[in-house]
Amino acid sequence: MKNQYEEKFSKNYRNIPQSFIREILNVASRGDMISFAGGLPNPEFFPNRELAQSAEAVLNGSGDRVLQYAGSQGLHPLREWIAQRYNRKYGLSIAPENIVITSGSQQTLDVVAKMFIEPGDGIVIEKPTYLGALQAMSGYLPRFLPVDLMNDGPDMDRIGHLCREHVVKFMYCIPNFQNPSGICYNSEKRQMITDLSSRYGLLLLEDDPYNEIRFEGDDLPPLYRYVPENVLWTGSFSKMVAPGLRMGWVVLPPGLVSPFIRAKQSTDLHSNNLSQYVLWHYLTHNNIDEHLECIRIAYKNQCRAMQEMIRMYLPGEVECTCPDEGMFIWLTLPEGLNAEELVYECIRKGVAFVPGRSFFTNGEGDLHIRMNFSNSLVESIEKGMKIMGTVMESVRREKVCFMNNS
Amino acid sequence: MKNQYEEKFSKNYRNIPQSFIREILNVASRGDMISFAGGLPNPEFFPNRELAQSAEAVLNGSGDRVLQYAGSQGLHPLREWIAQRYNRKYGLSIAPENIVITSGSQQTLDVVAKMFIEPGDGIVIEKPTYLGALQAMSGYLPRFLPVDLMNDGPDMDRIGHLCREHVVKFMYCIPNFQNPSGICYNSEKRQMITDLSSRYGLLLLEDDPYNEIRFEGDDLPPLYRYVPENVLWTGSFSKMVAPGLRMGWVVLPPGLVSPFIRAKQSTDLHSNNLSQYVLWHYLTHNNIDEHLECIRIAYKNQCRAMQEMIRMYLPGEVECTCPDEGMFIWLTLPEGLNAEELVYECIRKGVAFVPGRSFFTNGEGDLHIRMNFSNSLVESIEKGMKIMGTVMESVRREKVCFMNNS
Repeated sequence: MKNQYEEKFSKNYRNIPQSFIREILNVASRGDMISFAGGLPNPEFFPNRELAQSAEAVLNGSGDRVLQYAGSQGLHPLREWIAQRYNRKYGLSIAPENIVITSGSQQTLDVVAKMFIEPGDGIVIEKPTYLGALQAMSGYLPRFLPVDLMNDGPDMDRIGHLCREHVVKFMYCIPNFQNPSGICYNSEKRQMITDLSSRYGLLLLEDDPYNEIRFEGDDLPPLYRYVPENVLWTGSFSKMVAPGLRMGWVVLPPGLVSPFIRAKQSTDLHSNNLSQYVLWHYLTHNNIDEHLECIRIAYKNQCRAMQEMIRMYLPGEVECTCPDEGMFIWLTLPEGLNAEELVYECIRKGVAFVPGRSFFTNGEGDLHIRMNFSNSLVESIEKGMKIMGTVMESVRREKVCFMNNS
Repeated sequence: MKNQYEEKFSKNYRNIPQSFIREILNVASRGDMISFAGGLPNPEFFPNRELAQSAEAVLNGSGDRVLQYAGSQGLHPLREWIAQRYNRKYGLSIAPENIVITSGSQQTLDVVAKMFIEPGDGIVIEKPTYLGALQAMSGYLPRFLPVDLMNDGPDMDRIGHLCREHVVKFMYCIPNFQNPSGICYNSEKRQMITDLSSRYGLLLLEDDPYNEIRFEGDDLPPLYRYVPENVLWTGSFSKMVAPGLRMGWVVLPPGLVSPFIRAKQSTDLHSNNLSQYVLWHYLTHNNIDEHLECIRIAYKNQCRAMQEMIRMYLPGEVECTCPDEGMFIWLTLPEGLNAEELVYECIRKGVAFVPGRSFFTNGEGDLHIRMNFSNSLVESIEKGMKIMGTVMESVRREKVCFMNNS
């Protein structure tokens, strides 16, 4: 049915892709469904009680400030905490003045898109990439320039080629255990991409939501460390503490701080002040490292269990990534299986996941599935993988029968 | 100094006006400054203790849901509360399904602008109008079509003329005690503008942040009541409860709900879940009407005191509006006084206000001043008005001397 307001909508709005994930999530939230679909952190590790104490402390202690309008850049002591943590971890010298608090990473993507993208501007993206970023950027009518993601990071030759052949505004990249693929750039590729950034003046929007939940291996330096003048480095409290607080931040080169604030201010004046104070109080009155260690141990167990069950229950030709961080495993199906076909049958049998197509801009992705492991207990993972295995086998058998008969 | 990133910025970004108000607010937040500049509610009426209790209750009681990702439309029981309150007050039949919770009214303006505005599209605005709306909409490159605001509402002939002569996407209006002018549309003009809306299919973005703090006179029906299919009616908890929570909502015609959610989702996934739960708990466990009555009594006192002091201490030719609601009085200066000149001298003497120019799109406004009364005690109002009066008189004397000598 035609929407009566259709002709009034802007091209920008019309270009925003519908989220198939949101539709699956609605189904997946049915109580009896085993869901590998969402990108949800495990609520078992939400610090409910501690945050309640912090909320009580800041509201009773300084409610007049907590509840008033506030500056657009965000709470100074919270920015200080972020700067110090990064500086210690990576030997950097970020000042609180380089940081802006945002209403979650998604807002950073929207604001950066607003600041830079004019219709038709080239934006380099990984292929596949985070659906939320495609949604945020699409509203400003870019021309997406996808670059294949290999097991150790993106195809560097292709990035160089794109920089030479196109006017590129920035590259959007997720170097640490990407959503959806779970792939991590290795050291060489980090060096190479920042070399390209210097050579071509390529701005990098470095999305880093999983920074604090690496459960195996050594931390690699952020792209920001190599070329701070060319990197907008976004972080998030969603995986570290809790997503319902909608709190993130971005570390910016000095010349981009005021422009970012001006653009952000036009979208929501400033970020939620209660959440900023609550987080700051929580982070400075609790042992966040112990808290993170619990999350890491649990996620590692869940991830390794899922990998094992994939090998045990899915057809042998199904390939999967092996992340040391993040919340997702990425499956590649053999010819003859199609993720879009599988998802409906699996949902009927009680398991949900996200088919790959949502993470591509060109209709590709039917051979891929994104599996979330952070929000399922090991028993559910086993039960779900058995169902998925059975569905995959039966679809393949049917296809073989069909081909033999036709 | 040229910003090294300048050439990469989008036209959209470049078109967002700088907020002169923000600069003044920085000065005005100096401890010794009497400020009539901000649009701040009086923090004396923030329900700190009650919100602390609500935060504790929802985090300890259902932290797993409060802190998790959530749906983009917003918390259902909170939408129910809003619907019921409006339905009772105005005899409407709004369903929770018609409402979307936003990260404050400013986000509603940004999302609506994204949904509708293409470069060059006509947007009818009041003259003067709310600066935040100009900032939100400017990022999508509209052509503003200003309509003079008279004492009883906007110039209707002019709106009709604009609808006939231009492609108009919507009109942005603040019928209840506008920021900056404090002007309220009377009943006839409400009827007339909604007739125009029906005749020309003119969408109305009805901004209504002061709805609950009318301190005198009878409530007039919202434009939404006359033509619900053409009105996007935005509300806010900032003046009713507290702005630091950054919570607002919008009532939409059914055909615009999904499109709004799709556009909002691309900007921040969903609104802060903690604040949604805290507000809902607070509103359903406390007597909000008693709370609002306290605010109304205080604001009425402050408003009437400011009007009296204007008559007492400012030059007799200075005109002012006489609002029964809201937080602002609008001054019109006699020839020979200029708001931009006055503000620097007044700040030097310890009083801040916002010169009118920020609320116009065409450089007009030097004969106007916006005065906030909600955030100043009566003693401060008296002290501040005396200073402003002295500065105005001395500037006039200087000008007369200068003219006599030249």
